[in-house]
Amino acid sequence: MWLTIDLTSDVPIYTQIRNGILTGILSGELTPGESLPSVRQLASDLGINLHTVNKAYGVLKQEGFIQVHRKKGAVINAPEMYRADDGYYARLREQLHPLIAEACCRGVSIDDFTDICGQIYAHYQKEARRNDHE
Amino acid sequence: MWLTIDLTSDVPIYTQIRNGILTGILSGELTPGESLPSVRQLASDLGINLHTVNKAYGVLKQEGFIQVHRKKGAVINAPEMYRADDGYYARLREQLHPLIAEACCRGVSIDDFTDICGQIYAHYQKEARRNDHE
Repeated sequence: MWLTIDLTSDVPIYTQIRNGILTGILSGELTPGESLPSVRQLASDLGINLHTVNKAYGVLKQEGFIQVHRKKGAVINAPEMYRADDGYYARLREQLHPLIAEACCRGVSIDDFTDICGQIYAHYQKEARRNDHE
Repeated sequence: MWLTIDLTSDVPIYTQIRNGILTGILSGELTPGESLPSVRQLASDLGINLHTVNKAYGVLKQEGFIQVHRKKGAVINAPEMYRADDGYYARLREQLHPLIAEACCRGVSIDDFTDICGQIYAHYQKEARRNDHE
């Protein structure tokens, strides 16, 4: 199972599912055209509510990462369907603002902040290269 | 009023209050030792539930930005009370991981990502300098 959920985390479960699927796409464990488990199956595998999985799939659909086929269910989209656009960049800025306000308050320098970002980027790029799904 | 709330935003209201107070600290509108409005007052000013303000103050207290005096109520802490520590850096990484996983998926380069971070940093540092609260 490529998806693990931490029930003790502050991160909502539907967000954890969404993040797990993004990581799966990045690492090549989930490829374009591949079907995700049905809502019912995933809810049962993870021992969580149907509505939670439904919400996660709804977010992923809205963000362009998956589409929902009548027959095949939820299917991973091709990368060109979710390339960064203006709407995404606006949302990214909105998400970064409070993180950076807090970092500034706590005396973290811009260099330290971008170093941490660089380390996390390197982690995901290594994953992506290891699986060579391009 | 230094705090505005967007009732249509996806960001929970208690998080918006917390972020607004951090921005107030950064810009120098809120100084160490200064009292915040009482929970009742702020809830009334913003037209929201008491529990929402209570939750925001609880988070700020837990994060070290404020303390709660028996008489003075919620008071802004001195900066050394909330300097970045190991716990904070661990939390920051946890918050950045999903953002960066998504950025990687969407084909955003590390340089573009850190450029955006740098712009937001510059915004807050300009605020801080303008008010010269050091």
